[in-house]
Amino acid sequence: MYEGAIQDLIDELGRLPGVGPKSAQRIAFHVLAADPTDIKRLAAALTRVKEQVRFCVQCYNVAEEDMCRICRDPRRREDAICVVEEPKDVVAIERTNEFRGRYHVLGGAINPLEGVGPDNLRIRELMARLSSGKVLELILATDPNTEGEATATYLALMVKPMGITVSRLASGLPVGGDLEYADEITLGRAFEGRRTL
Amino acid sequence: MYEGAIQDLIDELGRLPGVGPKSAQRIAFHVLAADPTDIKRLAAALTRVKEQVRFCVQCYNVAEEDMCRICRDPRRREDAICVVEEPKDVVAIERTNEFRGRYHVLGGAINPLEGVGPDNLRIRELMARLSSGKVLELILATDPNTEGEATATYLALMVKPMGITVSRLASGLPVGGDLEYADEITLGRAFEGRRTL
Repeated sequence: MYEGAIQDLIDELGRLPGVGPKSAQRIAFHVLAADPTDIKRLAAALTRVKEQVRFCVQCYNVAEEDMCRICRDPRRREDAICVVEEPKDVVAIERTNEFRGRYHVLGGAINPLEGVGPDNLRIRELMARLSSGKVLELILATDPNTEGEATATYLALMVKPMGITVSRLASGLPVGGDLEYADEITLGRAFEGRRTL
Repeated sequence: MYEGAIQDLIDELGRLPGVGPKSAQRIAFHVLAADPTDIKRLAAALTRVKEQVRFCVQCYNVAEEDMCRICRDPRRREDAICVVEEPKDVVAIERTNEFRGRYHVLGGAINPLEGVGPDNLRIRELMARLSSGKVLELILATDPNTEGEATATYLALMVKPMGITVSRLASGLPVGGDLEYADEITLGRAFEGRRTL
């Protein structure tokens, strides 16, 4: 409906998650009126994310070097690994200040309906990390929903025979919800009260 | 909370209208996972809007040349001007196919509480266009809320002594609403039933 460039921008914005046609139009007109340096910064930030951000070779969290900030940090305990579904879950747990070990990002949860099986997650890579024998505790912090529970149960069955303590985040998290939306206190409680499986 | 580039992107996205911290994070992770060419296209669209889009020298609609597509179109009637607040209102009215004249975009509405008076709108420019004597009808399509009504009343008082027919969009538009959200039929009805002031 608009001419060239502005319609192109509305179309591109409309492809982003959670941005409908009206929001896309609103953002496009905001862009039109905004300071050019602000928009240059946004465009540069978009490009830089694609160029610079990759996944940590050890834990698969987002990183700007081969390893992420947490895996590079020598003060973090190497004998405890917290398993999460996505990088944003790492951020949520870091915010609680309850955990000083390392992470392992699976890249999702087991979900047969969407064709996601154990082979589609970074479970093999987790097993390789555990086989070093350095890890004494594994905390399963997958989402407290059906897929997350199934993934936790699957991992517990695989890891317990290795003599590693396996725990799951305590109840306290609202069941059926999404880990990343939990507030710090609830998530901190869940960490404290984790139960051995 | 994240490292460098991804946090920068979350911050930049969070400055856009209607994008909260959670949406910004969701979009940033979408960007991270998306095809690099898609993101290049989005970044380029942002830059191009700032470089290419300007305002029509005649009606102040968005344009990529000196004049917008509508002012350049010789088939559009020159004797009728529809006055709107914003470029997005032009798009809403064009969608009804009820109007074949030209537009004039004021750039807002009179709003004393926010310090917007007649001098802050493109009313002087409208008067200059009307002084040519070619325009026979002026349709006031400002938003059907207090500011839009005030602007329409102000314009009607100024223009009627010039012997030009002045009309206002008919009721049918939900009062207190926003013109751009009206559906095509309601807005089309409002066009048909416009009443002389």
